[in-house]
Amino acid sequence: MLLVDAACNILPERREDFLSETDKIIPVVRKEAGCTRYELLCDPANPGQCHFIEEWESRRHLDEHLARPHMKEYLAKTAAHHSAPTRLTVYEISGVQSAILGP
Amino acid sequence: MLLVDAACNILPERREDFLSETDKIIPVVRKEAGCTRYELLCDPANPGQCHFIEEWESRRHLDEHLARPHMKEYLAKTAAHHSAPTRLTVYEISGVQSAILGP
Repeated sequence: MLLVDAACNILPERREDFLSETDKIIPVVRKEAGCTRYELLCDPANPGQCHFIEEWESRRHLDEHLARPHMKEYLAKTAAHHSAPTRLTVYEISGVQSAILGP
Repeated sequence: MLLVDAACNILPERREDFLSETDKIIPVVRKEAGCTRYELLCDPANPGQCHFIEEWESRRHLDEHLARPHMKEYLAKTAAHHSAPTRLTVYEISGVQSAILGP
């Protein structure tokens, strides 16, 4: 299992376009084989700093995802919204535990 | 190494107070032993859905963090800002790879 953090730097003036294109792609990606989590989260103090937090069953599933036509189209369509390249961090997961914290 | 995702549900009317308390605690936590990442990210489509994305060198460092007086004080101070308990997901990391994606 992999957890992926794709850290994006979005130009302030392009943020709305970026979010609307991203809203369209998220449900499509969530249906892809091997995808168990795919969400966009942004820094409230720095709204241009956005992260796709993703879970994939394997590296093969992630590679297939990045090669899909709809992803290539999405990345081409949104390339101009970014002020810097996207930094992809891929965490290999050996175990997961969940707990409820607080009241 | 651990990656932690603490998923919080923040009441809309308490979000500003939550963010200002959180702004104060983030730099304190980043100085704690074993902390290599500690940031707050929120869902742009649902600003009450916030996640602390954290990296800790070990489970012991995470447990020490949760037991620190400043964390207990922070959790008590912000408890009323939450509309539901926090869901903690702890990922055990066996490897990390980074890459630059796109133009």
